[in-house]
Amino acid sequence: MGCLGDGRFAVEIRNGVSNGCGEVEDAVKVLLEGLGEDVNREGLRKTPLRVAKALREGTRGYRQKVKDIVQGALFPEAGLDNRVGHAGGAGGLVIVRDLDLFSYCESCLLPFPVKCHVGYVPSGERVVGLSKLSRVADVFAKRLQEPQRLADEVCSALHRGIKPAGVAIILQCTHIHFPDIEPVFLDSNHQGWVKILVSSGSGVFENKNADVWDDFFGLLKFRGINMDKIHLRGSSDPCWCPSQSSLSAKVSSKIGPVNPVMVTAVASIIESLGEDPLRKELIGTPSRFVKWLMNFQNSNFDMKLNGFLCDGIDSLNANEEVNVNQKITSELNIPFWSQCEHHLLPFHGVVHIGYLMSDGFNPMGKLLLQSIVHFYGFKLQVQERLTRQIAETIAPLLGGDVIVVVEASHTCMISRGIEKFGSSTATIAVLGHFSTNPTARASFLESIPRPTSSGEQ
Amino acid sequence: MGCLGDGRFAVEIRNGVSNGCGEVEDAVKVLLEGLGEDVNREGLRKTPLRVAKALREGTRGYRQKVKDIVQGALFPEAGLDNRVGHAGGAGGLVIVRDLDLFSYCESCLLPFPVKCHVGYVPSGERVVGLSKLSRVADVFAKRLQEPQRLADEVCSALHRGIKPAGVAIILQCTHIHFPDIEPVFLDSNHQGWVKILVSSGSGVFENKNADVWDDFFGLLKFRGINMDKIHLRGSSDPCWCPSQSSLSAKVSSKIGPVNPVMVTAVASIIESLGEDPLRKELIGTPSRFVKWLMNFQNSNFDMKLNGFLCDGIDSLNANEEVNVNQKITSELNIPFWSQCEHHLLPFHGVVHIGYLMSDGFNPMGKLLLQSIVHFYGFKLQVQERLTRQIAETIAPLLGGDVIVVVEASHTCMISRGIEKFGSSTATIAVLGHFSTNPTARASFLESIPRPTSSGEQ
Repeated sequence: MGCLGDGRFAVEIRNGVSNGCGEVEDAVKVLLEGLGEDVNREGLRKTPLRVAKALREGTRGYRQKVKDIVQGALFPEAGLDNRVGHAGGAGGLVIVRDLDLFSYCESCLLPFPVKCHVGYVPSGERVVGLSKLSRVADVFAKRLQEPQRLADEVCSALHRGIKPAGVAIILQCTHIHFPDIEPVFLDSNHQGWVKILVSSGSGVFENKNADVWDDFFGLLKFRGINMDKIHLRGSSDPCWCPSQSSLSAKVSSKIGPVNPVMVTAVASIIESLGEDPLRKELIGTPSRFVKWLMNFQNSNFDMKLNGFLCDGIDSLNANEEVNVNQKITSELNIPFWSQCEHHLLPFHGVVHIGYLMSDGFNPMGKLLLQSIVHFYGFKLQVQERLTRQIAETIAPLLGGDVIVVVEASHTCMISRGIEKFGSSTATIAVLGHFSTNPTARASFLESIPRPTSSGEQ
Repeated sequence: MGCLGDGRFAVEIRNGVSNGCGEVEDAVKVLLEGLGEDVNREGLRKTPLRVAKALREGTRGYRQKVKDIVQGALFPEAGLDNRVGHAGGAGGLVIVRDLDLFSYCESCLLPFPVKCHVGYVPSGERVVGLSKLSRVADVFAKRLQEPQRLADEVCSALHRGIKPAGVAIILQCTHIHFPDIEPVFLDSNHQGWVKILVSSGSGVFENKNADVWDDFFGLLKFRGINMDKIHLRGSSDPCWCPSQSSLSAKVSSKIGPVNPVMVTAVASIIESLGEDPLRKELIGTPSRFVKWLMNFQNSNFDMKLNGFLCDGIDSLNANEEVNVNQKITSELNIPFWSQCEHHLLPFHGVVHIGYLMSDGFNPMGKLLLQSIVHFYGFKLQVQERLTRQIAETIAPLLGGDVIVVVEASHTCMISRGIEKFGSSTATIAVLGHFSTNPTARASFLESIPRPTSSGEQ
């Protein structure tokens, strides 16, 4: 939200029917109803307003002009006097690395994080204020985008604004996998990301084989970015968005035909941003977004699951004295996807489950634990409730002494005003022995390995 | 700047004499003059406005209310039914880790980065929207602060706002060293940070030995935060700010008596924020800030340095054919401090210098290279100019074939609206053989080791 408080912004939104916010709220209500939700439920009542605010903030790039940003931030810096060569100021390469941005995928409307590296070679004895490189990149990120176009637009806008010898852009983009793609669940690294790297260059960077690109990569290398290992995306490559992969199309047929009222609602949201829903790249977007959303529809599968669970293992009495021979058994890093009911934005991460068993044997099998995690993930959720529901469901099946830890990254923590990129949320639920024995809890928490990678490139 | 464009905000500032922005601009002009600068120089002309904007944005916490943030973001979540124990929703611990914030040190007015970890145990079957934990922490960070008070204020504000069973706060704060402390330059890790860790707890977290703290640390541990290794700050510890260390006081006497007009100007800035310059912790702040600033005063030492340099080695002709036996010799990771002339905020990092020498021997000695780096650092600067000046100065002394790479973190990239925490800037200047031979450049860039730590905890 930057410097606007929530309250003030809400007023702006409320009065802002003419700028499309009222339309967005109405459209979000249609989507919630299409998911089988009660729009008056307390957790959802303000969701339409929150979604409208987040979307307006997240696409503010449509209402910003690069000229206003760069103007007045060009400073005179003499180059090297009477010498051959290039040096900082005029001639030398200037790069800003590791700018964290996020953008919205034009193919499916989900936000995707971008690590942006910007370089330029000054000319005309002018340099630009460093923060402007970030601000200009942000203007184009905060629109419906595709990685290569985003790189190209930032590149040419900076070239026009700064008039340097050349501009180079490298973007590392990551897109959440779609949850209906089965292999993702079988990925032992449970990263669940599509990653691509795109570049764009102008002026002296126009030729991809120019020496100045080697300098640029040389300076990126010691930030852990090694060009040799990464395949640069070509213009003929298919769309990167998992919603367009053939596998996704095949599997998502499970969801059934999309509701045309919901599709129309999403099209009206796109239109309210000032975009043309009939632009080639956007034509299928509303139905792809609705397909994604329908993974999280409200369902009455509880009966079905309960039926299964009743066939399970007889539960121990949680208050029964714990046998000293029982040891903590665990299933760690079970991946999950869910959708935040406050913002209609994905959150995803891993679940760690621990329980006491005398023989260290999981009577349920990992697959059933995974199914329960996925069952509770695929709804409009909040992480706290998800944690509790998993604990309550598995406790009777695993002897009553269970600990559940959920670790998640919330898109709503990065793709709105607060943009806390590195943050992650952990919740814990404990039952039986774990609720009364801090040593057992500590022992389980100790056993969780530190993540080897945050899922980023 | 959040959602306000530069232009709109500037208008607000221009009209905003009543809210103290005009005063800040006038005070900054006094400071620039006190540094011996020409306030009409192109790079400085808008510095007073930029400083006023950055400061207003960076201390917006004085104008925000926690009640407005939390209100409407408390959601009903039932706890476990009919069970002993704690689970997510009501009873289970909820933590948000790795929130990047920054604050202003009340002792010296420099911004300092904060990694904030927030936890709470819900009660009354209510949970709070996760982003509110970040927003509330930010309200108190964006004021003049001391780490322990910041932790305490965030803790008690969240406790009042959420009414949970308890709130826990852990802050990892880092403060830039003051450049006049000699040992910093001799630190081979050239990190130059004072690091402390503070905690605050309410309710069930009030007792530092409560089991729930173990759960909290257990969940932090696998983010790489190990409590065992870190000394928790006690209330009787001396002020953490390096400006108050006895060493700093002793060494800074080199700078001479502080200019009372500048001190008054800084006091007026503090007052314009709505703070009381006579508050105990703030009494010495204006003179400490002026002392810091005077490290970067404009000086005419060039003559002196040039005199020294003329006694140096005869320079080779840069166009002379390079002897194939010459090899690249380098001095890597020379630390530097500087002050951004656009925002009066520190930037700091390392300089890497490479040159061609037939015997691989540095005729200048590392100490002289360091002195030159420090000489050009201790001014109001921009990184591009710093890079060029170092290259131009050392080239005649090192045979004419030099490459200079400067890597820096700019406080102005994190402590204003853009808040790009992980970003870093690299600039490069090349002369002689390095300007014409990409292989020599690549070979030097290859030799720079990847940083083992970004200087954060």
